[in-house]
Amino acid sequence: MILIISLVFSLFSFSHASVLDFCVADHAGPIGPAGYSCKKPSKVTADDFAFSGLGIAGNTSNIIKAAVTPAFDAQFPGVNGLGISAARLDLAAGGVIPLHTHPGASELLVVVQGSILAGFISSDNTVYLKNLKKGDVMVFPQGLLHFQINAGGSSALAIVSFSSSNPGLQILDFALFKSNFPTPLIVQTTFLDAALVKKLKGVLGGSG
Amino acid sequence: MILIISLVFSLFSFSHASVLDFCVADHAGPIGPAGYSCKKPSKVTADDFAFSGLGIAGNTSNIIKAAVTPAFDAQFPGVNGLGISAARLDLAAGGVIPLHTHPGASELLVVVQGSILAGFISSDNTVYLKNLKKGDVMVFPQGLLHFQINAGGSSALAIVSFSSSNPGLQILDFALFKSNFPTPLIVQTTFLDAALVKKLKGVLGGSG
Amino acid sequence: MILIISLVFSLFSFSHASVLDFCVADHAGPIGPAGYSCKKPSKVTADDFAFSGLGIAGNTSNIIKAAVTPAFDAQFPGVNGLGISAARLDLAAGGVIPLHTHPGASELLVVVQGSILAGFISSDNTVYLKNLKKGDVMVFPQGLLHFQINAGGSSALAIVSFSSSNPGLQILDFALFKSNFPTPLIVQTTFLDAALVKKLKGVLGGSG
Amino acid sequence: MILIISLVFSLFSFSHASVLDFCVADHAGPIGPAGYSCKKPSKVTADDFAFSGLGIAGNTSNIIKAAVTPAFDAQFPGVNGLGISAARLDLAAGGVIPLHTHPGASELLVVVQGSILAGFISSDNTVYLKNLKKGDVMVFPQGLLHFQINAGGSSALAIVSFSSSNPGLQILDFALFKSNFPTPLIVQTTFLDAALVKKLKGVLGGSG
Amino acid sequence: MILIISLVFSLFSFSHASVLDFCVADHAGPIGPAGYSCKKPSKVTADDFAFSGLGIAGNTSNIIKAAVTPAFDAQFPGVNGLGISAARLDLAAGGVIPLHTHPGASELLVVVQGSILAGFISSDNTVYLKNLKKGDVMVFPQGLLHFQINAGGSSALAIVSFSSSNPGLQILDFALFKSNFPTPLIVQTTFLDAALVKKLKGVLGGSG
Amino acid sequence: MILIISLVFSLFSFSHASVLDFCVADHAGPIGPAGYSCKKPSKVTADDFAFSGLGIAGNTSNIIKAAVTPAFDAQFPGVNGLGISAARLDLAAGGVIPLHTHPGASELLVVVQGSILAGFISSDNTVYLKNLKKGDVMVFPQGLLHFQINAGGSSALAIVSFSSSNPGLQILDFALFKSNFPTPLIVQTTFLDAALVKKLKGVLGGSG
Repeated sequence: MILIISLVFSLFSFSHASVLDFCVADHAGPIGPAGYSCKKPSKVTADDFAFSGLGIAGNTSNIIKAAVTPAFDAQFPGVNGLGISAARLDLAAGGVIPLHTHPGASELLVVVQGSILAGFISSDNTVYLKNLKKGDVMVFPQGLLHFQINAGGSSALAIVSFSSSNPGLQILDFALFKSNFPTPLIVQTTFLDAALVKKLKGVLGGSG
Repeated sequence: MILIISLVFSLFSFSHASVLDFCVADHAGPIGPAGYSCKKPSKVTADDFAFSGLGIAGNTSNIIKAAVTPAFDAQFPGVNGLGISAARLDLAAGGVIPLHTHPGASELLVVVQGSILAGFISSDNTVYLKNLKKGDVMVFPQGLLHFQINAGGSSALAIVSFSSSNPGLQILDFALFKSNFPTPLIVQTTFLDAALVKKLKGVLGGSG
Repeated sequence: MILIISLVFSLFSFSHASVLDFCVADHAGPIGPAGYSCKKPSKVTADDFAFSGLGIAGNTSNIIKAAVTPAFDAQFPGVNGLGISAARLDLAAGGVIPLHTHPGASELLVVVQGSILAGFISSDNTVYLKNLKKGDVMVFPQGLLHFQINAGGSSALAIVSFSSSNPGLQILDFALFKSNFPTPLIVQTTFLDAALVKKLKGVLGGSG
Repeated sequence: MILIISLVFSLFSFSHASVLDFCVADHAGPIGPAGYSCKKPSKVTADDFAFSGLGIAGNTSNIIKAAVTPAFDAQFPGVNGLGISAARLDLAAGGVIPLHTHPGASELLVVVQGSILAGFISSDNTVYLKNLKKGDVMVFPQGLLHFQINAGGSSALAIVSFSSSNPGLQILDFALFKSNFPTPLIVQTTFLDAALVKKLKGVLGGSG
Repeated sequence: MILIISLVFSLFSFSHASVLDFCVADHAGPIGPAGYSCKKPSKVTADDFAFSGLGIAGNTSNIIKAAVTPAFDAQFPGVNGLGISAARLDLAAGGVIPLHTHPGASELLVVVQGSILAGFISSDNTVYLKNLKKGDVMVFPQGLLHFQINAGGSSALAIVSFSSSNPGLQILDFALFKSNFPTPLIVQTTFLDAALVKKLKGVLGGSG
Repeated sequence: MILIISLVFSLFSFSHASVLDFCVADHAGPIGPAGYSCKKPSKVTADDFAFSGLGIAGNTSNIIKAAVTPAFDAQFPGVNGLGISAARLDLAAGGVIPLHTHPGASELLVVVQGSILAGFISSDNTVYLKNLKKGDVMVFPQGLLHFQINAGGSSALAIVSFSSSNPGLQILDFALFKSNFPTPLIVQTTFLDAALVKKLKGVLGGSG
């Protein structure tokens, strides 16, 4: 085996030059189109690259009997700028993740427990539906409406990942009925009638 | 002025080496994630870079009193791979472009004639609304639900452009009520009731 | 219709987590390679996504009888990071937008009024020319020299959009004759003679 | 509720124009830098977007007591062009996924069962180590050496996802000792001695 | 040292699954917006990743006393899809690479021999000039007009690289005077007079 | 020749609007995923686009008889955000650049002096080797292990460029033996034995 003593010194100035293999989010710094500012390398630790929030079951004691727990760059600084993030879906028996889109990412779902009926709708109004059992994977192309429904009699759990550290999430019913979207405009742009819109706004807390 | 006679010859082999400044769509060739195959350079003409379809008013004799005429890479081969495309929106008096998304692009709208009320909804369920008059511009970030309504008493015309040559278009009502989306699943994932869904499917031609 | 009361609460922490569907330019913040810093979401209003400057005719009382009014991220903060921007071209009778490039974007032009002769030159020195009438569209691939000339007897108006929120604009005559480009270097690199260069610099205000 | 009968017809030509919301891999077609060619839309079914291979435990009856089961675009055509893919890691008691890189993607790991000690090494030779228990997530920035070790007494299972549909996988020991890398060159470029290299090549099947 | 015999078999199916670490250009296959089709992996050899053309001095016996030898994806199949390419600049005494742009890439120049005066012009008409000696590097941002002039009394040599495998090259004088750009349009769009344009076309071989 | 006096004024407001053709690194500002913040345009000079560090031979008086001198965005602010950077490789007789990867870029090498044996290993464990003489070029696809060895009897010099302004550099031996990577983990993840690891750590200065 060869001795390499002076190598340590000869390349020293090089090896400290740039350590930007990653850009852990500094949530206090300015944000740009590509994501959060980077924490100073000297402050980065292994903890920045790990996230324990997906280990905790979401609270499904709600009307959809489901919960979404995100690990996006806003929650998980280590993924900032890396083009990936994740979330946990908990679906109690009868649980549903309502129709929604991710404006900024494609989604890949893996069923960890239980069975899930999932689907998405393409631009030409075709619905792609799959019954997924434990271990099955499904991919939802970027920006398309999709949903997940517990297809079994007991709790289901899925881990989803995204092709962006900031995929966004637009839940259709929330956009319409939990927002400040004026009822007459909803009526005009969805063909739903005003009475229904008002009723759903009452339930979900929308205004306007 | 200097004579440059032999320059023509010395660089000849270079100047013909690569003419891939553009990739005019060959609709008959294979398609990949980045778009259509390129026409052979020798077959490309100026006509490939121009499109006259947006000069023709769309037929607004329909229930939404509106029409969308696209100039995407499927219609306008010259934009293939260039990250841009366009469409024409015709809104007769009372016309509405219903809630929709473009899964693959941001949109920029310019009002050419009349006045338009436009809006989009962000992931945090805030509605951004603007009354736009002739010459006004509005931008709709990628993947978010948005709409356009004729806000005047006469026809309105807008030219929209997109940050992709293939922006996609998912019209909410079509995705729900003109598709093969099974009614029970719509009910489960939207909180709309089955009777309403069936009624709208009847109108729009959906199945399932 | 199902009641959904507790849904509002169960997903509350999620829906406020990240609202980065967009990145409205904060012109006072740091700028990075991907664009301007983002305004704080709480300060963003619908006005940030609209721009009225393209509704005002540019002043064509100049020697080129033409004007360009940009709506890039520097003028229109809402487009920052969205990969799109726009401009208005006014061409009085006889008006010309001289040869220029956009180093950072492809351009899509729509003729709104009048008729325009437009063209671009590819890397293999082919000129693609089109006579465009009202409603016609033409696309100019990124970085290539192109121009627009009023081809009718009255004013022409075009709306152009770009595949970047910061397309840049390099006008050939300005680069050569309105800059500090030393005359001897212009002569060496363009084959134009010094007298001509000096004359054009005198007209356009160049130095060196 | 409004009637919308003629809408179906007026927009018909538009809705069938382009259905390229996705590009399901046609493994028989040409491949380009952006991925596989797209299957014809008429041949795409829901099955193309689902993959059941990750539901099957990998065979860990080997010396590393571990197995990797990929769902990249080569195995799972639905992810082609979507910037995401996945894999399953099975680690029996004592199992190890040896040091490796993914040249084309960042990786996000979720522990589904058991506990895993994982780590990566940055360009400045810092090692980031985490003990991960069920539900914990860790991210490995693109291109950096990393590993996973079963940190418990029983089997561990992790689902990993990638920021590319074709992340690649370069296992360090395989690159060195299971390849045709000539032994003298390995010695020169790694400081390992020839006897060791030959021994490891014998074990792993390398040549040269 | 541990024995690892069965590892070879357990991961075999994985390691042959996908070898798309690169996409060597198959010049005979279809081309798409992202580049040439990939050669079949079984036909790829080390020779595909090497190129000897830059080792040969270009012929500078021409009026510009200079030559450009490209190693773009059209000449050097190994760079296809990798976002990089190169060229060799030979400048005899008095040699000049005339004003030009690369529509699709930024350029980085390294002086290998002699001295070179180089410069580029930004969108705000500022000229950035540098006298470069052997070993000096200069970068030219994407799409901006730039040039290189031999600044010494003997031959100069530079190696340039580009941020794309297909940077393009638009030489200003060729675009104007070696193309089919009609003289009246050149006059209108450049402020040059017709007599000069005709003279330069005569020299360079332009038509129209 | 036409007079163009008033053109200077008519477009004045436009030409100063945005000068972001480039983003020279402000090393004191915040860093984001896309790179360093941009220097204020008014402070940018031609010197920002030039770098003289590659003109100086690296010190090869070390055990590898080689040196790497980088011109990345950390050293050369002008390349920030432009997708390109460079480095100089000096190889004395017998010199070796040990096995390494660039996590964020492909590399293109040009031999300026001497002869070099270079190679890389693909994901399917194939080694691509080339003997390169003066003027030869070789490309190393992103993220793959590669090396360079002086193949002649005298000094060799190569200029390398990268498809990113921040390619990163992970030297295999440094990652393993000059880091804080605990010896037992190295043993587990590489199949090297502990004694060897400790010996190499002693030589290279690793801990743990």
